[in-house]
Amino acid sequence: MSISKNQLKVITSLSQKKYRQKHNLFIAEGIKVVNELLNSSFEIDTLFATDDFNVAISSDKICRISDKDLQKISSLKTPNKVLGLFKISDEKPLNKTGLTVVLDCVNDPGNLGTIIRLCDWFGVSQLICSKDTVDCYNQKVVQASMGSLKRVSIKYIDLEPYLKETELPTYIADMDGENVYKTKLPNEGILIMGNEANGVSETIKSLIKNKISIPRFGNTKETESLNVATATAILLSEFKRGL
Amino acid sequence: MSISKNQLKVITSLSQKKYRQKHNLFIAEGIKVVNELLNSSFEIDTLFATDDFNVAISSDKICRISDKDLQKISSLKTPNKVLGLFKISDEKPLNKTGLTVVLDCVNDPGNLGTIIRLCDWFGVSQLICSKDTVDCYNQKVVQASMGSLKRVSIKYIDLEPYLKETELPTYIADMDGENVYKTKLPNEGILIMGNEANGVSETIKSLIKNKISIPRFGNTKETESLNVATATAILLSEFKRGL
Repeated sequence: MSISKNQLKVITSLSQKKYRQKHNLFIAEGIKVVNELLNSSFEIDTLFATDDFNVAISSDKICRISDKDLQKISSLKTPNKVLGLFKISDEKPLNKTGLTVVLDCVNDPGNLGTIIRLCDWFGVSQLICSKDTVDCYNQKVVQASMGSLKRVSIKYIDLEPYLKETELPTYIADMDGENVYKTKLPNEGILIMGNEANGVSETIKSLIKNKISIPRFGNTKETESLNVATATAILLSEFKRGL
Repeated sequence: MSISKNQLKVITSLSQKKYRQKHNLFIAEGIKVVNELLNSSFEIDTLFATDDFNVAISSDKICRISDKDLQKISSLKTPNKVLGLFKISDEKPLNKTGLTVVLDCVNDPGNLGTIIRLCDWFGVSQLICSKDTVDCYNQKVVQASMGSLKRVSIKYIDLEPYLKETELPTYIADMDGENVYKTKLPNEGILIMGNEANGVSETIKSLIKNKISIPRFGNTKETESLNVATATAILLSEFKRGL
């Protein structure tokens, strides 16, 4: 079997958010990520797989293709047997308890993917993104999140009303904040991380009292600030290490 | 002025380690990284810069080029005014005190760049790499390290004799290690991080008593292990947080 012209057109279009929304589909690639998503609440639309990919799903959902065709639709350097189209699931209702991570305009897909993986590792079940944060169904995010996408509930909302209403303690990661190692952190709360270049926006900053920072131990002030994903790793570790 | 054929050939060849070693040169791009390296012990060989890049160096070291020529030699999506050829500096002598990070076969340039930045942030002045770790003068490493390259001493050596001889306490990051949050860490010591897929090699593991791990807080064992750069961030934070 080979890929129809129409299928090819849909797959190609899914690199753009507006077409992912129109078709309500996103792409995941490779054995590991596809298998993780098959074993999840995400619904499969179509799997495009070479003959040596074994999977127990209804045959009308699977389209066997050649290595050459896989190469054609894949965006990986080394395509790995399968590309799946999955249905975008409805966002879960807002969870008002526990530890939540909020992202204010994080742009880089690799950073978002890493942060999703970190949330999964540290048992943070909810990730809230500003509407200008990169789309979590962006293919690079899906690949970088390594299947953690299925275990973390991700919502895109207006941050301002949400942060105004919440009763949880809120913390902004900010270079001028208090030393996180000397801050007593709660079990439940909201950790807000900002844009790669500009940090958290002034509007959001003005709403939040607690600002925390990771102290610099190097001798020089020239050192570039930590990357947002690295800083999230250290701060989540700080929230959880005492538990 | 435009780039000579010979210059173009040299620049292109520097994407390969053997030619970096032959010419004893490496490439850095963009205003920020180039300026950081100009203000360091790295010696400049030649700067290729557009007319709007201002810099106070001897005119025989600078070659003014057009945007089009910069585009031709740049490996960035958006070239940023300047590409510099710097001389590879001699490795510094081994420092036997303080906190040292050791990398055993880390392959990804982005990971190495992030780890160099982390060493800089946490005041780790020495990074020791196995000979099969990606070259720190690889262009992607140089760009990802954001100028931290000049502040961290990086050495490529055989790990086995070094680790056999050291008198410092040594720690391996290992999934089956002791909970790092419950481990008393020393001020001086060696932290060993392993390959992205396989962790630390068995030979090295057999030499080291202390194994530490970052506990997983999520409910599922399916969660992919933390990325090596993220794990290094959390472990360095643990070494330093009590100081």
